[in-house]
Amino acid sequence: MRKLSAILVLFSVLQVQAQSDSAIIRSIYTQSLTAGKGYDWLEFLATRIGGRLSGSAEAAKAVKWAETTLNTIKPDAVYKQLCMVPYWKRGAAEKAFLIKGDKKTEVNICALGGSIATPKGGLTAEVVEINSWDELKQLGEKNALKNKIVFYNMPWNQTHINTFEAYGAAVEPRWAGAFRAAPYGAVGVVVRSAASSVDAFPHTGSMSYKDSVNKIPACAISTIHADLLSQQLKLRGMPQVKFSFTQNCVQLPDTSSFNVIGEIQGSEFPDEIIVVGGHLDAWDNGQGAHDDGAGVVQCMEVLQIFKTLNIKPKRTIRCVLFMNEENGGRGGAKYASEAKLKNENHIAAIESDAGGFVPRGFSFEGDSLAIAKIRSWQNLFTPYNIYSWDGYGSGADVGHLAGNCKVLMGLSPDSQRYFTLHHTAADTFDKVNKRELQLGAATMAAMVYLLSEYGL
Amino acid sequence: MRKLSAILVLFSVLQVQAQSDSAIIRSIYTQSLTAGKGYDWLEFLATRIGGRLSGSAEAAKAVKWAETTLNTIKPDAVYKQLCMVPYWKRGAAEKAFLIKGDKKTEVNICALGGSIATPKGGLTAEVVEINSWDELKQLGEKNALKNKIVFYNMPWNQTHINTFEAYGAAVEPRWAGAFRAAPYGAVGVVVRSAASSVDAFPHTGSMSYKDSVNKIPACAISTIHADLLSQQLKLRGMPQVKFSFTQNCVQLPDTSSFNVIGEIQGSEFPDEIIVVGGHLDAWDNGQGAHDDGAGVVQCMEVLQIFKTLNIKPKRTIRCVLFMNEENGGRGGAKYASEAKLKNENHIAAIESDAGGFVPRGFSFEGDSLAIAKIRSWQNLFTPYNIYSWDGYGSGADVGHLAGNCKVLMGLSPDSQRYFTLHHTAADTFDKVNKRELQLGAATMAAMVYLLSEYGL
Repeated sequence: MRKLSAILVLFSVLQVQAQSDSAIIRSIYTQSLTAGKGYDWLEFLATRIGGRLSGSAEAAKAVKWAETTLNTIKPDAVYKQLCMVPYWKRGAAEKAFLIKGDKKTEVNICALGGSIATPKGGLTAEVVEINSWDELKQLGEKNALKNKIVFYNMPWNQTHINTFEAYGAAVEPRWAGAFRAAPYGAVGVVVRSAASSVDAFPHTGSMSYKDSVNKIPACAISTIHADLLSQQLKLRGMPQVKFSFTQNCVQLPDTSSFNVIGEIQGSEFPDEIIVVGGHLDAWDNGQGAHDDGAGVVQCMEVLQIFKTLNIKPKRTIRCVLFMNEENGGRGGAKYASEAKLKNENHIAAIESDAGGFVPRGFSFEGDSLAIAKIRSWQNLFTPYNIYSWDGYGSGADVGHLAGNCKVLMGLSPDSQRYFTLHHTAADTFDKVNKRELQLGAATMAAMVYLLSEYGL
Repeated sequence: MRKLSAILVLFSVLQVQAQSDSAIIRSIYTQSLTAGKGYDWLEFLATRIGGRLSGSAEAAKAVKWAETTLNTIKPDAVYKQLCMVPYWKRGAAEKAFLIKGDKKTEVNICALGGSIATPKGGLTAEVVEINSWDELKQLGEKNALKNKIVFYNMPWNQTHINTFEAYGAAVEPRWAGAFRAAPYGAVGVVVRSAASSVDAFPHTGSMSYKDSVNKIPACAISTIHADLLSQQLKLRGMPQVKFSFTQNCVQLPDTSSFNVIGEIQGSEFPDEIIVVGGHLDAWDNGQGAHDDGAGVVQCMEVLQIFKTLNIKPKRTIRCVLFMNEENGGRGGAKYASEAKLKNENHIAAIESDAGGFVPRGFSFEGDSLAIAKIRSWQNLFTPYNIYSWDGYGSGADVGHLAGNCKVLMGLSPDSQRYFTLHHTAADTFDKVNKRELQLGAATMAAMVYLLSEYGL
């Protein structure tokens, strides 16, 4: 009987606690939906600063803007963390053509981040289409790629429901295409954009070279023009199709930049740190609205919500706006190494870097028991259509904390629209829906609230 | 022991059945995502035909297009169902101004569907802002509305997570504003658009009159201009703000139109009918891409998927493309009355009329046990991010079958973006994401497959 009473008491304590948590979470969503500042912040970052690749003047403006804006929230501290970053510049706009005999058709390309320029006057050569790595090897070993431009046309797998799964496979030619083709004598690389849609926007993104391999220029071609090129290559009786492209990019010496950090100190366990992070840098060809302006302002909004609602977190909340996620990850690495150096105790780090679309849940990596504790809170999120708790992973920036943070998490927004605009000129502010952005910020803030109350 | 074996056998039968169902459902999604036709169909309907209000030449074109396109699917039957529809025409574009002294500011309005025109030369009067029905009554009884234009400025409730809940409340002034203000001597009505966003698009939609009440013209004003008007009215020391608007709409005699129906007959229970429905008509000011071109092509895609995958349904599947959902509901009423007349046995009817956005689940009304049976299938939908099974309701067209159909359902897409474009010039094809549209079609087809296999 005593046991039963104890259970009943415990149950009613849990009930009250759950009610109070649910009331606080409701107030967090209401605050974000009715008075959130993230959308206006994002308008400034995306439309007034725009693309802001590491090392650029725009990236420096973004750092300044972030510091100033974080200060308006009046957290306990705002500071910058110096880090050295690569500085790649696109230079004058790219140009590319399909050439059949004396007929030239302009197509849309963009240099891949990190690529070298073409020779002055451009690079023109016959094209060989490659649909698989096996095919590359076979043709390469037959000497069929010598002095050719290799056209990687590996299609997007539309059967995945989560488009990030398709991206994982599609991105390989972008990253490795140049250093894999160069040993066979290829002179350049054109990669089908890693995109879920067929349209005229080329998608940039990082590529890599190997020191031991000849560097050749690499670009992405829009999917509609990839289809055109492929179709032209397949037509019989045509003169051999050539591809011609000019790009003017250059890798300058590393330069200094910053992570920007805002922090609310924990009232009971200030040494237990919860990070919310996004990345300040963005590709130069768009406005970086979804990638990752959205994540940046959502993380700032978490602090804003705590301050406005006067919620005093028991544990420290740190909003970290990372530099250089796109082409180096130096900001994430710097933050993690400083944390280790200072022997800081990170209990959780949540990244928002999958677009400012309607939130669906969280992904996780790290300690299983701690993850199970977090999942036990999921009913609190059901009223907000947050139901996805099984995804694996976190984010490229907070990922550097692996092994030094109990749980790493990613906010998981709906993925259907992301790869229509990711790393393109179409990643603009008008593609962001205000309520979707605000729901994402509220979802992060609610999670941070529970983490700060109950720890891991 | 025998009981246990029986249970084990049953369990393994259920296992095999579930596996086979899950394989068929996977093939349905794959078909829709990789070879669906709905997006191309929608491009034609939205961009080549466009807005298609009942009675218009465009509505007639949509009927013809629907019949022709359904025939390309080669179902067992394609036919039309005659119905009389109201025929309201907007006429020449509306114009409206805020007037302060001799300063005129143009603002964006559109006539509400069913409204009368303003007098030739327009209607100009002082404006009274109304924020609640109580306020209308109080001011009306004080004779403060006589010869005034009533400006209903009841704000959108952003705290709802599902925007349809906000719409339900916001739409009341549009529907009832004119006949409630007219008895107090008001000469016209301006209604804040029922919109989740603040922008320059006015949202049209049906309004109503009462025979016993004087008819006064009614329009919707864009939310950004509603805010401007409200702000101007609040400023002190200004000359009294007047509102001036001209609209040229006219209600013509009822005319004939059609529901368009395509049907695959059931192989085992042809008399048990499953309806998938959307509405062919759309407001004249946009392209009717999300409302409800998306629903139309998703329902057609259900038949297309069954035919392409050669799935023979045990029960009859009927794709019903309703006419006149927007301003009369005559198509839905006609279909239901014919069904009753013929004593048809409808087991389920699913409507897609909430936008072509990423699907989240289904809503339900009807027989509880049958609904419970449907909900028992929900694990089959989990891989497709379909998790919402608790919503109430169905759709305005299939709703006419209430009492004569075991379960009425609605496809529930994500609601965040819908009321930024609903009934506006912004409801255009480019706002529809191909994968989101196709996921919705697959979700309906998977549900129809289960209904046709297992009945209710």
